[in-house]
Amino acid sequence: MRTIVLLSGGLDSATVLALCRAEGKACHALSFRYGQRHAIELAAAARVAASLGAASHRVAAIDVACLAGSALTGGGAVPKGRSEHEIGHGIPATYVPARNTLFVAHAIALAEATGATEIALGINALDYSGYPDCRPEWLSAMQEVARLGTKAGVAGEPVKLLAPLLAMSKAEIIRQGTALRVDYSLTLSCYDPADDGRACGACDACVLRRRGFEEAGVPDPTRYRGG
Amino acid sequence: MRTIVLLSGGLDSATVLALCRAEGKACHALSFRYGQRHAIELAAAARVAASLGAASHRVAAIDVACLAGSALTGGGAVPKGRSEHEIGHGIPATYVPARNTLFVAHAIALAEATGATEIALGINALDYSGYPDCRPEWLSAMQEVARLGTKAGVAGEPVKLLAPLLAMSKAEIIRQGTALRVDYSLTLSCYDPADDGRACGACDACVLRRRGFEEAGVPDPTRYRGG
Repeated sequence: MRTIVLLSGGLDSATVLALCRAEGKACHALSFRYGQRHAIELAAAARVAASLGAASHRVAAIDVACLAGSALTGGGAVPKGRSEHEIGHGIPATYVPARNTLFVAHAIALAEATGATEIALGINALDYSGYPDCRPEWLSAMQEVARLGTKAGVAGEPVKLLAPLLAMSKAEIIRQGTALRVDYSLTLSCYDPADDGRACGACDACVLRRRGFEEAGVPDPTRYRGG
Repeated sequence: MRTIVLLSGGLDSATVLALCRAEGKACHALSFRYGQRHAIELAAAARVAASLGAASHRVAAIDVACLAGSALTGGGAVPKGRSEHEIGHGIPATYVPARNTLFVAHAIALAEATGATEIALGINALDYSGYPDCRPEWLSAMQEVARLGTKAGVAGEPVKLLAPLLAMSKAEIIRQGTALRVDYSLTLSCYDPADDGRACGACDACVLRRRGFEEAGVPDPTRYRGG
């Protein structure tokens, strides 16, 4: 079983990689450079890929202009200090236009080019940040694209899109990963980290992550600025 | 009306651009550099964009490895001398894994980032080359992705995917473009052109193009090698 795992360097995708590895799959990690503010996450992705035994780790570059207009790509300030209630409502400034569509499109192409039969990604519909391209209905539409737009799909064997975290809360994800010995100190979730990788503690990603560790009853290994 | 037009430098997408321009749309052309053998087509795309009055022309780079494994990206020989009957059956060696999925994913992202409301592309289901990602069912799936995976879609105004050539034969496309004064001498369809842009005359794209001009009763302006 050859599986492409989309790996951002964050907590969720690290857990996905651990889950796939625990099932004995040969995992080929795929990250993206797309002009993100927090490009330091790519270093985290490399550490995670190595620590969890990915068979390979590729970083694909995406044309920056196609993903412009987001706070994550320099199009404005990253919101800080929002409550969990606020995070759960509306599409935030950190939404990157069609990012996951582009990421999965690359993965579908790479799967077809390399004979991978699965693509695993760390989206989850609970505790998510309000991004439209993290929802199950979006994933189903991408699965249809994989079925209808590829040679493997026409042959009746489309690459399968897996989102094992889709219905899990952040706390459940952390408990799952902790059971699989994921070293979360290697991961970076923050949208606005310091140059040395310390997290801001106040962006949506930090808020959700911190609460996840609290709820899971797992010590939070995150290095926070000023912490 | 701000429209993104996928522009390959070939005959079909040039006609799409002409159609959109004839409707008075502000057209932003989008081409891709993806390791194609026939990168010279990008020069043709630039000529076509200028000649038909595109408001802008962007060339986005796509990670080459994600589109590997095709005769068009150096993964084997471009088939030559196939009959129209052969061209109509099966997926040829020139199929590039999930290429149109990647192209349209970029266009969806760019549309969202720039406020474009339409994406026009030159796929056609008749006289096509056997590519799964040129079929109407694939296009419908991509439209669902645009609807479900973007901010505009969530707001009830998804970017609209247009494929005005979908049900047209090559001859009909050429007649339509000729009526709109498209200068087809600027376009390049050949999968294996000479360095000076002359067409091989024998690949699937050349065979379909040449027959299209014959059937349309329009003089073929293509410069063929040895011709």
